[in-house]
Amino acid sequence: MKYLKLFFLILIPLISLADDGSRLWLKYDLIKNKNVQSAYAKYNSIIIPSKKTPTIEKALEELQIGFKGLLGKNLTNNSKNNTTGGIKLEITNKEELTKDSPEDSFAIIVQKDNLTITSKTETGVLYGVFELLRNIQTEKIITKNIVSSPKVKLRMLNHWDNANGTVERGYAGSSIWKWNELPFRIDPRYITYARANASLGINATSINNVNASSRFLTAEYLEKIKAVADVLRPYGIKVFISVNFRSPRTLGGLKTSDPLDTDVRKWWIEKTKEIHQYIPDFGGYLVKANSEGEPGPQDYGRTHADGANMLAEAMKPYNGIVIWRAFVYNADPNGDRFKEGYEQFKPLDGKFDPKVIVQVKNGPIDFMPREPFHPMFGSFPKTKLGIEFQITQEYLGQSTHLTYLAPMFRECLDTDTYANGKGSTVSKVIDGSLYNSQMSLMAGVANTGSDANWCGHPFNQANWYAFGRLAWNHELSSEDIAKEWIGMTLTNNNNAKEKINAIMQKSLPTYIKYTYPLGLHHMMGEGHHYGPEPWLTKAARPDWTSIYYHRADSIGLGFDRTGKVSNAIKLYSKEIIDTWGNPDKCDLNYLLWFHHIPWSKKLNTGNSLWEELCYRYYSGVEETKNLQKEWNEMKPYIDKETYASVMARLKIQEKEAIWWRDSCVLYFKEFSKMPIPNNLILPNRTLEEVKKLVEIYHLR
Amino acid sequence: MKYLKLFFLILIPLISLADDGSRLWLKYDLIKNKNVQSAYAKYNSIIIPSKKTPTIEKALEELQIGFKGLLGKNLTNNSKNNTTGGIKLEITNKEELTKDSPEDSFAIIVQKDNLTITSKTETGVLYGVFELLRNIQTEKIITKNIVSSPKVKLRMLNHWDNANGTVERGYAGSSIWKWNELPFRIDPRYITYARANASLGINATSINNVNASSRFLTAEYLEKIKAVADVLRPYGIKVFISVNFRSPRTLGGLKTSDPLDTDVRKWWIEKTKEIHQYIPDFGGYLVKANSEGEPGPQDYGRTHADGANMLAEAMKPYNGIVIWRAFVYNADPNGDRFKEGYEQFKPLDGKFDPKVIVQVKNGPIDFMPREPFHPMFGSFPKTKLGIEFQITQEYLGQSTHLTYLAPMFRECLDTDTYANGKGSTVSKVIDGSLYNSQMSLMAGVANTGSDANWCGHPFNQANWYAFGRLAWNHELSSEDIAKEWIGMTLTNNNNAKEKINAIMQKSLPTYIKYTYPLGLHHMMGEGHHYGPEPWLTKAARPDWTSIYYHRADSIGLGFDRTGKVSNAIKLYSKEIIDTWGNPDKCDLNYLLWFHHIPWSKKLNTGNSLWEELCYRYYSGVEETKNLQKEWNEMKPYIDKETYASVMARLKIQEKEAIWWRDSCVLYFKEFSKMPIPNNLILPNRTLEEVKKLVEIYHLR
Repeated sequence: MKYLKLFFLILIPLISLADDGSRLWLKYDLIKNKNVQSAYAKYNSIIIPSKKTPTIEKALEELQIGFKGLLGKNLTNNSKNNTTGGIKLEITNKEELTKDSPEDSFAIIVQKDNLTITSKTETGVLYGVFELLRNIQTEKIITKNIVSSPKVKLRMLNHWDNANGTVERGYAGSSIWKWNELPFRIDPRYITYARANASLGINATSINNVNASSRFLTAEYLEKIKAVADVLRPYGIKVFISVNFRSPRTLGGLKTSDPLDTDVRKWWIEKTKEIHQYIPDFGGYLVKANSEGEPGPQDYGRTHADGANMLAEAMKPYNGIVIWRAFVYNADPNGDRFKEGYEQFKPLDGKFDPKVIVQVKNGPIDFMPREPFHPMFGSFPKTKLGIEFQITQEYLGQSTHLTYLAPMFRECLDTDTYANGKGSTVSKVIDGSLYNSQMSLMAGVANTGSDANWCGHPFNQANWYAFGRLAWNHELSSEDIAKEWIGMTLTNNNNAKEKINAIMQKSLPTYIKYTYPLGLHHMMGEGHHYGPEPWLTKAARPDWTSIYYHRADSIGLGFDRTGKVSNAIKLYSKEIIDTWGNPDKCDLNYLLWFHHIPWSKKLNTGNSLWEELCYRYYSGVEETKNLQKEWNEMKPYIDKETYASVMARLKIQEKEAIWWRDSCVLYFKEFSKMPIPNNLILPNRTLEEVKKLVEIYHLR
Repeated sequence: MKYLKLFFLILIPLISLADDGSRLWLKYDLIKNKNVQSAYAKYNSIIIPSKKTPTIEKALEELQIGFKGLLGKNLTNNSKNNTTGGIKLEITNKEELTKDSPEDSFAIIVQKDNLTITSKTETGVLYGVFELLRNIQTEKIITKNIVSSPKVKLRMLNHWDNANGTVERGYAGSSIWKWNELPFRIDPRYITYARANASLGINATSINNVNASSRFLTAEYLEKIKAVADVLRPYGIKVFISVNFRSPRTLGGLKTSDPLDTDVRKWWIEKTKEIHQYIPDFGGYLVKANSEGEPGPQDYGRTHADGANMLAEAMKPYNGIVIWRAFVYNADPNGDRFKEGYEQFKPLDGKFDPKVIVQVKNGPIDFMPREPFHPMFGSFPKTKLGIEFQITQEYLGQSTHLTYLAPMFRECLDTDTYANGKGSTVSKVIDGSLYNSQMSLMAGVANTGSDANWCGHPFNQANWYAFGRLAWNHELSSEDIAKEWIGMTLTNNNNAKEKINAIMQKSLPTYIKYTYPLGLHHMMGEGHHYGPEPWLTKAARPDWTSIYYHRADSIGLGFDRTGKVSNAIKLYSKEIIDTWGNPDKCDLNYLLWFHHIPWSKKLNTGNSLWEELCYRYYSGVEETKNLQKEWNEMKPYIDKETYASVMARLKIQEKEAIWWRDSCVLYFKEFSKMPIPNNLILPNRTLEEVKKLVEIYHLR
């Protein structure tokens, strides 16, 4: 794009000097560290491969704007191979990248006079360029070779963006995709989006909501999607489309969408062919079927495998794949939603076409702040399973709470399923190493929107960042990722970096304390999922209420999943049953996920359940106050607008933490009939008053 | 705000150099004209009144950032009255502002060594500052005194922004109001919004959709609204709330919302008192009642006057007012929606409390691209009538067509109602001069959203601008307003300014040609109102179809409102009946509004109706091609991103113009049974094909 090359300064009016966050972590502001500056000062040119492909061109552009911004240096473009003081972009088989290293692996090789960024693929070279820039931006001097390989093959964002411009569970304005402007207008933000993703190694995106409109499969919209795909392609990003299973009827005029019907199969074959005429490297389909009212193969008495395999058949001539979601559950007041996905899919293990990946949410319910890992992981040896995380913070504070999610992603990935003995972590299921699978997928539900800063809360950008980095390498620590992001986005002051990292690391445990302590889950405001509503008793479905999950009664609290009400614990390995299945051994963070615990039962903290519950809610609130104090100390290091935005949101967070605390403590007190511990200050409102507050958010 | 004062330059990365439109017309980039620069070079300081109120502080700030940006000059703040080379801000009664000049009138007085900006009010002084800056920004040297007075007292934006962040009929992202962040976080955009409005003299804003949620009247939300009001207050902008008439039941727990019920009246009195505790200068209520399913006094057998007067009673102790919308119509397949507002309100003329203004849309149907003025104007001598224009382009190309609306606003305002004899224009009804009213209102439905450039199409900003300027002074010409806006927003090159003005002036006639020529109306896509759907036959209500309005049959086209089907024409004065009511004298632009014209009838253009219809649709499309050529010539003068955005949208406009043309010509051809004139190229698709295209936009 030409404006990337505007190498002159214009007068920016004074009013817009504050940082609106629109550049994400790719800020490229001049770095202050003189040592780092001089370490990179010797590089004056870029040596590119003889074949200047679009992706190499992007790598070149990025290096140029990066060096110009970070170091104030203009890198010249040099095609002579014998230059010194150059950054060499190279597509070749270096020994650093063994023959069987994963696609898009790259190496940065430090030579005497040059720095070589090398990969078997041009996308790998682009990734190497971003790695180099990230090192400079975080003020690191590269002194030895860097070799980096992705652990997971498909690193993907799932957009829940609707055709009408809204975003389901979006908290940062409207959709970034301007469908009415496409294909003619390419919003410059599409390019920022592509750069941001490529900088993390994200290589796939499904552009529309899984509650999918058929219109995305019409020629009218394929032309629009093609325009987006053309922008993303040079950045190594493949486009997927979420499809509505009923499309053969809706669009094709067929009488059925039965996946075993010949005409239906033919329709999908033709449609898939048509898509490839627009997008030759089409990523594939993402399907939510027979879930929450969406159509699917079960409407015709067929299985999920029948549906997925039909689409896989249509995809056969191409490289694309079919991603089929396992997020299904029937409305059964006597059942346990926890088990639904497992039970519906278990008989199908081994029946899916090799082109199908089944995409499983990290936990068995629905992106709760702390869920045990989904029991499907480790139990489906003959099915390729991808994992779906939620980056957008539907249940995690939306745009007003600071919650850094890398610890949650890691907790899930690091948990041992014991499927093939000790060490069979979820990450090994996902990256294909446990069952030696060649296809692997980590998907994250995007948190992008039209807001200037893309993600609402300035810290929400860190969750996009962390997801991408973990999808590339799930062995990166949550701390290292946070510090990278802080350095790129907020400040490179080491002291501040440590302190902000500390804020981020404790943010999720704090959030969980004042919302869902001890393994409580699914008690949010009905529909909009904003704020608490533990008293929600009636909803369109029993499993959309709160009481279905917390099961508070005069005896105690929690969902007994160890046999009496549900035997969900049996879906896990013996080792897990022995711990989580035993109320005395169960990690307190998962306690009420699996057990109905008497109010007065002493926990290993020395407190009764009731006391522990109260203490957690109260200490969660106290911690939100500390977050404000700690953030206040960061003021000297942070851009003013960003500082103010975060500080204001921390104040909202405190207010809403009190709202959660008061709601839950006052509500559960009706069951426990026990007093709030003496050393805690009683809520200054009644249960009826907090209920009234929640009602406000249900008014149209 | 502190960041206004960041008087240093920081390095902005190269990628963000393009203009994203976020500064609206207040760009304050350094002006190039040396003569203008030197003319203002003598001013070095600002002399402010002894009492430095918040509004004076804003005036001071604005002058400082304006001079810094436009002229590169730092103005010092000087409180000594005997300084020379100063810009003096003064609150006093100058002879230039006679005692009975309207509130907020101001004068800029050119003295030998100083420039004095004077007004009876501090808001007037702020307006004067914006007038001065506008002159500098458009490269005008002020050589003689400027005196300026508002013609209309209440110059107001109506936001149709919902509590959930969406905007009804919004085409620029989501709501600018971040309810979940308020009251704690003040988005910096609120300040830009306030400055932009104050720069035009807009002094009121209703912040929520007229399809109103009761939640805006809860303490929880009043606290949020107060935070917004506190930001807007120093800029002279009063906040109004759209209210849900059922609130006494919804919020107050009463059994009724009957406006004659004592408890209901008491509830509103208490609620109004409560609001004033948050917002002492509360503007008042805006009410959509018994309209399109909204609750209202008729639910209890009461009249609109009963409802409005009840609210006026509650407002009695305060300065606020009640704005009651006249946009009401019952679903009667045999009636004529054209007459509904008039007929429902006519018996109430004289029955409204003095605190009530009845807000009437510019035309009798609903913001169609070209509507005859609403017959209520001029027919309600005992009722204060305000006018409601739609700035957001629901029926005018949304975010993809270039349509400059000042000519439409002017056409309505300039039309003679003949109510008190010749010269009784709509503008004289509105500004209060015809009936000597002290209260007057011009409201515009806002087109703001979360998009970086606020309004979607870069040229949509001009409609916000034009509305505000006309609300201040409806005698300003559409051309002068356009040139001001171009100079502030796009370029001060005189040649380019003329050419862009020409594009703007013809944009609306062009749009009308390919959508609603000859007085056609209401044929847009159902629900979303995007694209054409003239064949819409069934809808939730008969008056939401297209056939209700165009009445195409084998004989001809158009709605006979001269007696046989409806006698709507009789609502106008005799002079109008004599012209619009006579198919041979009627302005062709209104022809099918009032007459069912035979297909073969010769019009005064020499063409038959059918031919004329075809020619207009076709020439409309041709003109969209010319717009692209003309815009292309402007490339050297325009910021690259803005240029590209407009050019891409012009291409969309052409595509959609063809869509409209093909839909309407092919559809009406089924009735006229006449061939498309020989010299026109036939559409390259069938009616069935365009119908299919429209169906796509109805898919979820």
